[in-house]
Amino acid sequence: MQKLPKTIEWVNGTVRIIDQTLLPKKLKIVECKSADEVIDAIMKMKIRGAPAIGIAAAMALALTAKSFSHEEKAFLLMKIQETAKKLMESRPTARNLFWAVDRILNVINPNKSSLEIVNDIINEALKMADEDVNINIRIGENGEKLIEDGDSILTYCNAGSLATVYYGTALGVIRSAWKKGKKIRVFVAETRPQLQGARLTAFELKREKIPLVLITDNAIGFLMKKGEINKVIVGADRILADGTVYNKIGTYTVAVLSKVHNIPFYVAAPISTFDFQSRKEDVIIEERSPYEVTKVLLKYNITPKGVKALNYAFDMTPPEYISAIITEKGIVTPPFPHNIRKILEK
Amino acid sequence: MQKLPKTIEWVNGTVRIIDQTLLPKKLKIVECKSADEVIDAIMKMKIRGAPAIGIAAAMALALTAKSFSHEEKAFLLMKIQETAKKLMESRPTARNLFWAVDRILNVINPNKSSLEIVNDIINEALKMADEDVNINIRIGENGEKLIEDGDSILTYCNAGSLATVYYGTALGVIRSAWKKGKKIRVFVAETRPQLQGARLTAFELKREKIPLVLITDNAIGFLMKKGEINKVIVGADRILADGTVYNKIGTYTVAVLSKVHNIPFYVAAPISTFDFQSRKEDVIIEERSPYEVTKVLLKYNITPKGVKALNYAFDMTPPEYISAIITEKGIVTPPFPHNIRKILEK
Repeated sequence: MQKLPKTIEWVNGTVRIIDQTLLPKKLKIVECKSADEVIDAIMKMKIRGAPAIGIAAAMALALTAKSFSHEEKAFLLMKIQETAKKLMESRPTARNLFWAVDRILNVINPNKSSLEIVNDIINEALKMADEDVNINIRIGENGEKLIEDGDSILTYCNAGSLATVYYGTALGVIRSAWKKGKKIRVFVAETRPQLQGARLTAFELKREKIPLVLITDNAIGFLMKKGEINKVIVGADRILADGTVYNKIGTYTVAVLSKVHNIPFYVAAPISTFDFQSRKEDVIIEERSPYEVTKVLLKYNITPKGVKALNYAFDMTPPEYISAIITEKGIVTPPFPHNIRKILEK
Repeated sequence: MQKLPKTIEWVNGTVRIIDQTLLPKKLKIVECKSADEVIDAIMKMKIRGAPAIGIAAAMALALTAKSFSHEEKAFLLMKIQETAKKLMESRPTARNLFWAVDRILNVINPNKSSLEIVNDIINEALKMADEDVNINIRIGENGEKLIEDGDSILTYCNAGSLATVYYGTALGVIRSAWKKGKKIRVFVAETRPQLQGARLTAFELKREKIPLVLITDNAIGFLMKKGEINKVIVGADRILADGTVYNKIGTYTVAVLSKVHNIPFYVAAPISTFDFQSRKEDVIIEERSPYEVTKVLLKYNITPKGVKALNYAFDMTPPEYISAIITEKGIVTPPFPHNIRKILEK
């Protein structure tokens, strides 16, 4: 793979992240010394993508733990709970965030000393970061079998190295197919309002010289009708037990268009993205600032002053639009309620 | 209606247009003294929208005629043919451009003197501009019957006053419904890459205090699924005899989404938009500069350097996706091949 640094890394007791709001202009590493700095980075989308947000949450808890390691146990645990709560309020839709917080809270053994508890938390966060890379590589290996030589693949938003610790989910599949020597072409939808496709996915593919064509989101339908796209692969922020997928706003539209044009629509995500507790009614679809819509990249105003905008960050794609879900444990095909349960028991 | 000036106007032998690339920041009137200046304005989208482009073409021919009015007839006619050719090469998809050129060429009586020919051309161009306003008002009156009190209407791109001489087609229908006191809400899709929705449609609606909500193009599907949109109305750049509609890229996607969600999809356009000669294979879909995609408003780069982009300016919507076409002669419903022919005979 290219020489892209890890998206998020624990280095000598600080958390280093790539500031994705500055890409593709600048590849800047930001150092977060406290959980609050990590939470701010999550809310401002300096770090984004469900798997990366999950690891960021784990590391934020590790930062809190470390800074209170010499405190009394009760105080330490209170601070950790406080950080956990703030994290869970930072972005409501991505499942991996909640999964990561749970996993860290689960390694806390209240019978241990403060120092031991802190060590356990840091070790778990580091382990989760390592696991994420391995999981992505397995997703890539599993998914690349679905890609054929000569395919024109549409990807949406960024489900690449930058959305994970390293390698990526949907883009990991594309990477693996490319590495195997399959001649592919990738249509990158720019993905308004934050343009993660134009900024991040184009950046990643270009570094690896994988052929790409950037398009506006509203060109997808026509290109499908013209027969220019023959596969779609996207990531996911949350997947319910019945196969309902929450992902970047616009994913549902792409899924509908894929179905109408008879094009396979694949979702690539780690098991940590699955949510077995929630029903559709429970999932909060994050509404972000209208300024993300009215000002391109929060800088360039495109609309008259005072115009109201609506900015759902995610949408919901029903299972009947999804051809398969690619996980580290294998490829899940319909019927999803049964087959998702089965793959988890593996 | 608001105090918006006419989009295009013939004033003392020059053509004044609103420079739409500067909106909504600046409402600047540009004066064109020659056909070449008008053609440049068309190509750079200072003036856009099929009906406005048609009138611009007629006035460009009038400018050429005027500047050679004291020349020998053969030379005058050669210059007019030259301008006609350049005009027809400026933007290939909009039907009204070709219709306008034809109509001007048709008033040329080679038995008349140069001065008489020039007068005939100028008079015809002025007549066409006046007609356009009246036609739009009739489209508005016919179309508003389809709008009900309480409707949430999606419009796409700009088919407003700025796309015509005055009043607008799709937005004319919305204006007429609003004037009749119908409480409506308009969802405005921003319409990448040139953002005519965010810049122009939002500008027009805001001036008249018609309630509007700006959304990204990729939010349309999800909002339809949530039941927030119950009618769609768009303009057209060309309509074939079978009801196939060419319009701004993304229109096809909106039409597919409308059908899947069982939402009426209306097209509003003057008769001059209909093309009875061409088959689908004959229509050229304009490809514009990739920089319109990679640089927002041709200014702000959003993607890594050297990234290839594909920029179809229009797409094609098959008749089966269209609920009705609203014209100045009435509303045409399916079956289109028969009913379009019928309305033209009116």
